[in-house]
Amino acid sequence: MVDIIEKKRDGERLSKEEISFFIDGYTAGTIPDYQASALLMAIYFNGMSSEEQGNLTLAMVESGDQIDLSDISGVKVDKHSTGGVGDTTTLILVPLVAACGVPVAKMSGRGLGHTGGTLDKLEAIEGFHIELTQEQFVKQVNDLKLAVIGQSGNLTPADKKLYSLRDVTATVNSIPLIASSIMSKKIAAGADAIVLDVKTGDGAFMKTVEDAEALAHAMVSIGRQVGRNTMAVISDMSQPLGFAIGNALEVKEAIETLQGRGPEDLTELCLVLGSKMVVAGGKAESIDEARLLLEKVIEDGSALKLFGELIDAQGGNSEIIHDTSLLPFATYEINVPALTTGFVSKMEADEIGVAAMVLGAGRETKDDDIDLAVGIMLKKKIGDAVREGETIAVIHSNREDVSKSMKLIQQHIHISKEAQKKPELILRMITE
Amino acid sequence: MVDIIEKKRDGERLSKEEISFFIDGYTAGTIPDYQASALLMAIYFNGMSSEEQGNLTLAMVESGDQIDLSDISGVKVDKHSTGGVGDTTTLILVPLVAACGVPVAKMSGRGLGHTGGTLDKLEAIEGFHIELTQEQFVKQVNDLKLAVIGQSGNLTPADKKLYSLRDVTATVNSIPLIASSIMSKKIAAGADAIVLDVKTGDGAFMKTVEDAEALAHAMVSIGRQVGRNTMAVISDMSQPLGFAIGNALEVKEAIETLQGRGPEDLTELCLVLGSKMVVAGGKAESIDEARLLLEKVIEDGSALKLFGELIDAQGGNSEIIHDTSLLPFATYEINVPALTTGFVSKMEADEIGVAAMVLGAGRETKDDDIDLAVGIMLKKKIGDAVREGETIAVIHSNREDVSKSMKLIQQHIHISKEAQKKPELILRMITE
Repeated sequence: MVDIIEKKRDGERLSKEEISFFIDGYTAGTIPDYQASALLMAIYFNGMSSEEQGNLTLAMVESGDQIDLSDISGVKVDKHSTGGVGDTTTLILVPLVAACGVPVAKMSGRGLGHTGGTLDKLEAIEGFHIELTQEQFVKQVNDLKLAVIGQSGNLTPADKKLYSLRDVTATVNSIPLIASSIMSKKIAAGADAIVLDVKTGDGAFMKTVEDAEALAHAMVSIGRQVGRNTMAVISDMSQPLGFAIGNALEVKEAIETLQGRGPEDLTELCLVLGSKMVVAGGKAESIDEARLLLEKVIEDGSALKLFGELIDAQGGNSEIIHDTSLLPFATYEINVPALTTGFVSKMEADEIGVAAMVLGAGRETKDDDIDLAVGIMLKKKIGDAVREGETIAVIHSNREDVSKSMKLIQQHIHISKEAQKKPELILRMITE
Repeated sequence: MVDIIEKKRDGERLSKEEISFFIDGYTAGTIPDYQASALLMAIYFNGMSSEEQGNLTLAMVESGDQIDLSDISGVKVDKHSTGGVGDTTTLILVPLVAACGVPVAKMSGRGLGHTGGTLDKLEAIEGFHIELTQEQFVKQVNDLKLAVIGQSGNLTPADKKLYSLRDVTATVNSIPLIASSIMSKKIAAGADAIVLDVKTGDGAFMKTVEDAEALAHAMVSIGRQVGRNTMAVISDMSQPLGFAIGNALEVKEAIETLQGRGPEDLTELCLVLGSKMVVAGGKAESIDEARLLLEKVIEDGSALKLFGELIDAQGGNSEIIHDTSLLPFATYEINVPALTTGFVSKMEADEIGVAAMVLGAGRETKDDDIDLAVGIMLKKKIGDAVREGETIAVIHSNREDVSKSMKLIQQHIHISKEAQKKPELILRMITE
């Protein structure tokens, strides 16, 4: 192991065997944390070649169980977002893409941070459960084209162990390590093709387009190496996506988007990502053809109908797709007034996320409870004109005192005198 | 601690408080190995400023006991060598410098590698012991000007713990870490002034003059920061120093050097280092004056006499200073013949050291026993002419089969057809 650390320290490339030796030994506990952390820091400084990243990804995939989706006919396409504020795309894309005939066997997680994860959001639907056996999961995807479950089995234990170590040794922020971590989970979950949404900007982990691009290239290259068709979109997270931040609020927004009346940016991102998924799934020849197909399944209501069938199949009350007032709602709705007149020039997405978290919409630690009903509905986005005293956002809260959240919102939605351009939503497409 | 790792990872400087937090926590066990190793690797890549190195050194000094030499009158001067093959300078310098009136309170260690350390070598003298109490040690230095003991007390535990960790995480080879490790031990041992012999070349840890120079500058700068007069000499270790490699053989060579008939290179290095020690100890105004003083105490026999008094005081048979045949000697003396005719062009010091170690002169692991009698006497040095079949070295062994050692010597003493220049012994003097 010392030789492996030394090699990476000196900028040399590690062989497939050396990487497997490390991952197997670290998972088994024969290689101690202190050697692993030294290697991680050497990787932080000297990086990894595409080949090394591919081998690291595969070694992590092989460290645990792998989900077998071979009984599902068709190309299984998965989607991953690097995470942002108010990102409801998964809830929309699952029925949207499935309605085009692409099987979607979605394994999702809970959230840590501003709001809940996809599983938390789905649990805002009364009765919805995510406990399906492997057989039920496969059968439901074959029957309905879609199913959503929580992560089951012992997937990528090496990644879990390494991630905990990276968290306490200042080695999280390394593109080869982030890329192999994400890709190993997707591959172990059985995806044939992967569409990545890499967020950039203030509310994202990758603050600059260059970093986002580097991460996207790294992941696409890993995908190619391990034989999974992978592509990435770099999308803007300089402001929250859509208007809703909060679990039930985002479910409502997802339903509205499936009804064809969602926020412009959220709808557009779903169409861009969805087109790629439909092409990857072999249900359209071109992106343009796929987009027409997606627009059609929104227009004719079949995507929304399928969302209802998903809810039915997994025990939820599918009435909500026609009546979103059946979703949990908060006791108080409190308007947040603008403090000056002008144009919205900047929305610090991560801080607005914090404003939702302090209401109870997200978890600060793993054991925190989430209040599914609370959150924030934005009324303005960057570029919009606003008058002093006009409502820029509405706080949905179960507590009367929302001063902390209101202050955060007012502080981090900047208003300037000059007119502002709306930021571009889709910044890059990465296919190699 | 994560913030500290992150800061160093990003190339920032750590404050005195942050360094103390790390060293105190690591020594106490509240900071785990895996965070320490990540920090060490970040230091490996991003280095440390002089100020950081000074603070790291002091924090390690303060992590354990410190030897109090204040009851010894005069400036206590210590010497440290970064280690080479056949390096007998300490045995010579202790009486040589003490004979000039500089108090030498020497704390020495055992050796790991080609031959033993100073303590092992002294134990080749029948009856010599190094168990003195702190009071006896101080009294002997005040009475005689010199004493040699083993390391006592709990000196620099932080350095010990960190060194073990560096050894298994490929972070040994970092100049700030090497420099602070060496300096912390010298400072904890109570030295007022420190003269460093930094070896460079094939048989040394620092393979290039540039690396040796960087290490020397780092240590001199630490010394200045912590208020200890420190200077360094960079000396050649492209071939072994002197002719003797092995414990009793080196004691004999030391005595011959104190008698004024030692090998030219060893004598010269002792005069160079000794001059600096005498000036640092305030017993001469200039290097030239100090050198004359050192030559005088060799010529008039007072240095040799003092070595005898040291041996007497510590229970050894001082007769050996007049009759070196009283030292342990090996059963067999086997000549190593040159395989071709020409000039010695290269002597791979570390491999020749291995040739001595396989005879039993050094330890491969901490628990190995040393055979004090065995070793190698070189008969040629770089630049010397040699005929095929002529003896280039003599193996002193207690085993009849010396084929492995002989092969190593013949393989690593290179003979070329062209005449060769002798390498320069003193490559640089570093005083700031």
